[in-house]
Amino acid sequence: MKYEIGVIGLGVMGKSLSRNLAQKGALPALYNRHVAGSEEKVAESFIAEHAVLDGAGAFDALKPFVDSLATPRKIILMVNAGAAVDSVLNNLSGLLSPGDIVLDGGNSHYQETQRRAAAWAAKGLHFLGAGISGGEKGALLGPSIMPSGNRKAYDEIAPFLAAIAAKDAQGQACCTYVGEQGSGHFVKMIHNGIEYVEMQLIAECYALLKQAQYSNDEIAAFFEAWCKDVGSYLLEISAKILRVETKGEYLIDQILDRAGNKGTGKWSTETIAQVGEAASLIPAALLARYLSFFKAKREAAQAFYAVAPKAVQVDPDHLKAAYRFSRIVNHHQGFSMIAEVAKKEDWGIDLTEIARIWTQGCIIKSDLMQELVHYLKEGDQLLMHSSIKAHIEQDHTAAKKMAATAIEAQVHAPCLLEAVNFFHGYTSAQSSANLIQAQRDFFGAHTYQRIDDPSGKSYHTHWEEE
Amino acid sequence: MKYEIGVIGLGVMGKSLSRNLAQKGALPALYNRHVAGSEEKVAESFIAEHAVLDGAGAFDALKPFVDSLATPRKIILMVNAGAAVDSVLNNLSGLLSPGDIVLDGGNSHYQETQRRAAAWAAKGLHFLGAGISGGEKGALLGPSIMPSGNRKAYDEIAPFLAAIAAKDAQGQACCTYVGEQGSGHFVKMIHNGIEYVEMQLIAECYALLKQAQYSNDEIAAFFEAWCKDVGSYLLEISAKILRVETKGEYLIDQILDRAGNKGTGKWSTETIAQVGEAASLIPAALLARYLSFFKAKREAAQAFYAVAPKAVQVDPDHLKAAYRFSRIVNHHQGFSMIAEVAKKEDWGIDLTEIARIWTQGCIIKSDLMQELVHYLKEGDQLLMHSSIKAHIEQDHTAAKKMAATAIEAQVHAPCLLEAVNFFHGYTSAQSSANLIQAQRDFFGAHTYQRIDDPSGKSYHTHWEEE
Repeated sequence: MKYEIGVIGLGVMGKSLSRNLAQKGALPALYNRHVAGSEEKVAESFIAEHAVLDGAGAFDALKPFVDSLATPRKIILMVNAGAAVDSVLNNLSGLLSPGDIVLDGGNSHYQETQRRAAAWAAKGLHFLGAGISGGEKGALLGPSIMPSGNRKAYDEIAPFLAAIAAKDAQGQACCTYVGEQGSGHFVKMIHNGIEYVEMQLIAECYALLKQAQYSNDEIAAFFEAWCKDVGSYLLEISAKILRVETKGEYLIDQILDRAGNKGTGKWSTETIAQVGEAASLIPAALLARYLSFFKAKREAAQAFYAVAPKAVQVDPDHLKAAYRFSRIVNHHQGFSMIAEVAKKEDWGIDLTEIARIWTQGCIIKSDLMQELVHYLKEGDQLLMHSSIKAHIEQDHTAAKKMAATAIEAQVHAPCLLEAVNFFHGYTSAQSSANLIQAQRDFFGAHTYQRIDDPSGKSYHTHWEEE
Repeated sequence: MKYEIGVIGLGVMGKSLSRNLAQKGALPALYNRHVAGSEEKVAESFIAEHAVLDGAGAFDALKPFVDSLATPRKIILMVNAGAAVDSVLNNLSGLLSPGDIVLDGGNSHYQETQRRAAAWAAKGLHFLGAGISGGEKGALLGPSIMPSGNRKAYDEIAPFLAAIAAKDAQGQACCTYVGEQGSGHFVKMIHNGIEYVEMQLIAECYALLKQAQYSNDEIAAFFEAWCKDVGSYLLEISAKILRVETKGEYLIDQILDRAGNKGTGKWSTETIAQVGEAASLIPAALLARYLSFFKAKREAAQAFYAVAPKAVQVDPDHLKAAYRFSRIVNHHQGFSMIAEVAKKEDWGIDLTEIARIWTQGCIIKSDLMQELVHYLKEGDQLLMHSSIKAHIEQDHTAAKKMAATAIEAQVHAPCLLEAVNFFHGYTSAQSSANLIQAQRDFFGAHTYQRIDDPSGKSYHTHWEEE
């Protein structure tokens, strides 16, 4: 008997997905490379730990793993993005037969996925890319899956993906065909960018409340209360985190304040710069993590400037409103970015479907995402939707107040500030870029356009002779 | 008789540099490609227009151009960055002899320069990269030049570069050997990033003063007054721009507020994301240009939200202080970025020399840059210098006030806001990134470090079981 599906890579995500497959009745063949210098057979010991995997295939060599699979073979790749993917693909491609399907479920760069898929297509093999969100637990209980690539190959592997995916409120799988090659990993990259901002916004609320002398338990209580009308998975877990005590002290206070990153926020920022979208919150959240990294410099600078924390009053209701406001701007920017790139790449992405598969299973699931499924039917500019407008108008004053408070209290809050600032720029028919165009023309003869000439003609002025 | 130096590419910058060379006694051979479908001999007509070029060589074919040069040949390439450079290099390399030198004076990406230099070195040819700043006028009267690459080849061409470069206050040429391959274009890229921010800061001051109902002439007068103690070239030309009237109306009010860009701000932002520096102002300035680009969306959004400009009072002295404060943060971030990448690439860049060659000739020359020459001797973290500290402490309150005013007045001011915000983050020994690390560990088992364990050991918590 052959296995219907195989999994390569038994890291945190690969293990969880494998158990998930088995629970849904698709007992997989599992492969993990033999770790140099170790006698351990990773797949074998993993299967031994979980009764549900009883009968799953355990391999530490690729050829017997491939041979154990029914054709067309369906393999989910769960290895670290980058060189590891190419290395496995190189070893794998000679063992496969035309029509076989490999789906990369890691956080690969979408342009790498495009490159790999094109190279494999030339060999008659199918390489699909799928973003998978949900972390360890989501992968086990039901992640959100964003697959893309050759449609017929997708249809072959789709039943397995649909089976393991989370289910939305209507019981539909949080898995949808995103579009052509690369689009799944692109959408996952922006998902993670949105996630960076969502996390940063909560961290900024935490910092402001802490500065206002609220205790961890009080902050957790606020977050729990907020969850009732602005529920989000990340807010929920933040409340849980703040309540965790070990050995009589709050764990949060023992954690070093240097944030790491695995690359998708960086890629999102690079792509924003390349594409020309004004999605300013993702870079702001990324650079907040970078700044956190320089702990020693921050310590030296605080001492050098003799900065003492400033007393501040924060009304939690105002902060909740600012948080809600900022999240809307974040989702506006993220979905606009997807729409823009989908247009350029001709991917034909259905934004309502993307929002729908993000309502469950993934890290950025929230009540807001539920609403967006409906709003995105009317266009990609969330801020131009009448229901969103009502939210924004309700929260704008509080958002401005909290931004001003952060500045006054000297609390680093790049995303709360930029959310308000972006909204002001977005709603300004007249920007100050006319002066920038004039400067560019003055020193570099870069030319400008005139408001009274809609033809878009380029003008140049000899400024010093006027 | 052979020409001592040649110039390829007679665009705005190539023309100005050629005239500059001739004025300094180095009559060049000039080449411009024959424009398809045109009879015009570009080099010939250009020489005919300028008496100083009498006797210069005019070519529209590469071989006779190369043959007209004394060996080792010295050629300055002034063509558009990107494919045009590779195209010229391809056509050129077969015509040159070992030891010949081509210096790319365009805005090439520094990694492209590294690639090209390596390929040419394999052929026994020298390819140098040089950032050249100063725009059209600087190129003619004396630009700031940032050359890099093979040191011996640089020494051959250095006299020509020194001759045409601007002179600093001590009469030294604003040209210095920056370092190994690529470092010159890297430094120029960051120069342009700093320039984006400097321009955006002035635009934001202009926007705030305009919202406060000051006229163009009044704003120009403020800028002129500021120039007396925070003099900068960009502020100077901004004042001039605001005074220009044509046909009875201010030209600035006729210019379309959609800012263009030529790529160096984008590259700077990508590099910041890649390198992990917290240089937040360059991305903010870049994205301000991007947002300006969506004029139609901004118009629609202003109408949709029925935004009316808010009355606001702006004290020009406070704004001047905020501008000065923000510029210091901008220069801090820019020089930190150079120091960081120079370390990683082992370029051994002397930051005081970079500041020195930026005191004249280039777009970001200013009184502040004069000061920095001295401060950078003490380290790359400008904000940690005692004289800078005095400036910052003097202006901090006003900077906070202006940031709050921008938010209250709903004036888009990403760089004024982020300068203050960055300073608050930089001087916070404790950030809120502990919560981000906890979130990452909660949903993705990404682990964290503890404040009480300086070993850097990774910890993981089973959060839901605690």
